[in-house]
Amino acid sequence: MPGVYVGVDVGGTKVLAGVVDAQGHVVRQARRATPGRRVEVRHVEDALDAAVREAADGEPIAGVGVAAAGFVDAGGERVMFAPHLPWQGERVRDRLAERWGVPVALDNDATCAALAEWTYGAARGASSAIVVTMGTGIGGGVIIDGLLVRGHNGMAGEFGHMQVVPGGRPCECGGRGCWEQYSSGNALVRDARERLGELPSLLEEACGGDPDLITGSMVGDAAEEGDLVARHAFESVGDWLGVGLANLVAAFDPEVVVIGGGLSAAGDRLLEPARHALVRSLVGAPHRDVPAVVTALLGPSAGLVGAAELVRRQERR
Amino acid sequence: MPGVYVGVDVGGTKVLAGVVDAQGHVVRQARRATPGRRVEVRHVEDALDAAVREAADGEPIAGVGVAAAGFVDAGGERVMFAPHLPWQGERVRDRLAERWGVPVALDNDATCAALAEWTYGAARGASSAIVVTMGTGIGGGVIIDGLLVRGHNGMAGEFGHMQVVPGGRPCECGGRGCWEQYSSGNALVRDARERLGELPSLLEEACGGDPDLITGSMVGDAAEEGDLVARHAFESVGDWLGVGLANLVAAFDPEVVVIGGGLSAAGDRLLEPARHALVRSLVGAPHRDVPAVVTALLGPSAGLVGAAELVRRQERR
Repeated sequence: MPGVYVGVDVGGTKVLAGVVDAQGHVVRQARRATPGRRVEVRHVEDALDAAVREAADGEPIAGVGVAAAGFVDAGGERVMFAPHLPWQGERVRDRLAERWGVPVALDNDATCAALAEWTYGAARGASSAIVVTMGTGIGGGVIIDGLLVRGHNGMAGEFGHMQVVPGGRPCECGGRGCWEQYSSGNALVRDARERLGELPSLLEEACGGDPDLITGSMVGDAAEEGDLVARHAFESVGDWLGVGLANLVAAFDPEVVVIGGGLSAAGDRLLEPARHALVRSLVGAPHRDVPAVVTALLGPSAGLVGAAELVRRQERR
Repeated sequence: MPGVYVGVDVGGTKVLAGVVDAQGHVVRQARRATPGRRVEVRHVEDALDAAVREAADGEPIAGVGVAAAGFVDAGGERVMFAPHLPWQGERVRDRLAERWGVPVALDNDATCAALAEWTYGAARGASSAIVVTMGTGIGGGVIIDGLLVRGHNGMAGEFGHMQVVPGGRPCECGGRGCWEQYSSGNALVRDARERLGELPSLLEEACGGDPDLITGSMVGDAAEEGDLVARHAFESVGDWLGVGLANLVAAFDPEVVVIGGGLSAAGDRLLEPARHALVRSLVGAPHRDVPAVVTALLGPSAGLVGAAELVRRQERR
C-alpha cells in the first residue's frame, strides 16, 4: 500500500507523532498534550488521532505504529496497564486500526526505542544489544541474535524494577530497592536534593531555596557549570547505572549497551562513571570483551521512529 | 556418519561421559576423577578420553559434545578460563576433534544443561525459558524465541554473579554480594552453620560438633527429618532464589523457569519459598502470567545430555 508510515509515542505528558521515512528520518512531526489518566479512553485516542493526522498532513497513510508508556501484551494488541494513561486491557491496536482504516502496530515505548536504535542508531549492525532508556524511570529493550525480544507476556526489558538494594528505597511499583530508584532522572534529582548543604551549590539559587523545585535539567545545567553537588549526583547515578548494567551484561552478554532517554543528554558525565562501575562489577571482565556503553543517537524521537519501523516491518512480512 | 553420540561433562571433581540416544536417554555412562587444576592440560584430556572410550564401549563414535565448567568462547572453540581445570584459552574443541577424529562441540556446562532441559526435559516445548543450575554456585542458560542464547562472548547466563546485595558477602569472583553467595549449595551450608545454636539441631550430631564439616546433603537430610535449623536454611536460600529470579524474569520475561543442579533435589522445600519471593518481588505481577518455577527433569546427567545434543544438532545442520 502506498503512503507514509507514521509513528506515535504516547507518553505520560505528551503525544508525539511523526512521519518516518525508510532511512529512519522524521520528515514531519506533531505534538499534543496527553489528556491524563482520569479521562475516558476515547479522549486519549482523539489526541493520538489529531497528532497523527497533523503529522501526515493530508498524505495517505500506509500504517501507524504506536509506542505506549505502559505494558503491552504479548500479541501487541492491548495496553494492559499504563501508569499515566487510562488504558487498562483495551484492544488499542484494533480500535485504532478500525478508526484509521490502516494497519497498526503497538508496543512498549522503550521496546520501540530499542528497535529504532538497533535499526538506525547506536546499535546498528549489532547482533545483540541492550538499550536502556533513562527518563524519570528506566525502560529497556533487548536484541538477541538479530531479534527484538518481546518475552512471553510482551514484558521483556523491564529493567527499572530489578532489585539492586534489598529493602532499599520504596518504588511506585510497590517494591523496594528498584534500580530506577538509584539511577534515573528522578534519582538524580533526589540525590542532588540530599546533597544540598554539604557544599555550596548553584542549585540553591536555581531552586529559589526550595529543594522540592529542583529539576533534572537544573542539575544538568549546574553540573555543566562545574557545580560539585550536581557533579556528585551524576557520579552516583552513573555508578549505579554501571552496577545494574553489570547484572544485565552477566545475564545477556550483549555486543553493545546503548543509553537513551532524557538523561543520556548528559553524555560522558553519566557514562564515564557507568563504564567504570561496569568493569569493576562484571564477572569475568578480564576474560571477555566488555561491551561499549554508548549514547543513543535518535534522541526524543526514538520511540516514534521505532513504532513506525514496527509497522513497516509488519507490512513487509 | 553412523555411530553413537557421546556427551561428556567435565566438572571440578569428576568427568562424566555417556552415550545419548536420539530421545535424550543415557544408554551407557562412564566416570573418571578430574585431575584438578595444577596438572598439565593433557592429563585432563586423557581423563576425558578414557571416559568417552569407556562409554562408547567399542561402538563407532559419530560425535562428542563437551560440557565444561568454565567460560567457553563465542565460537565454542576454546575454554577461556575454568576455576577447577587447567584450561586457559586452549583450543579444546580442535585438540579433541583431532585426537578422536570425529566432530566435537563444546560449551559451558550450564548452557548444555539448559539445552538438554529444553530439548528433552522440564522446558520442552517452551518458546522461552530460563534454566538455573544450583550446585555449589549458580550457573544458567537461556532460551529465547526458540534459540539457545550464547551471547557475544559465549558468556550469556552467568547469573550467579549478578549482584543482589551492594557491598555484601565476598565472592570467589572478586566481587561482593553475588547472588550465589545467598542462594546455592554453598550458601545453604553457610546459612545452616550460622544458625547452629539458635535452636537444637540434628546437624550438631551429624557434623560431630564441628560446623565446618556440615555438607549440603547433611542439611538436606536434616530438613527431611523436620530439623528446623535445616528447614530455615532452605527457606532463606529459596527466598533469595526467588528474589534473583524476579530480576531475571523482569529482564527476560520467560515462559518457564527450570531449577536444576544438585540443590534442586530438595524440590518444593527450595521452590516454594522461591515462588513466593518471585511473586512478591516481580514487577507487574498482577498484569502478567508469572512463569512456573519447576524442577529440572534430567538430574546430574543434564550437562552431558545437552553436550551430546549440541554435537548432534551441529551435525544435523
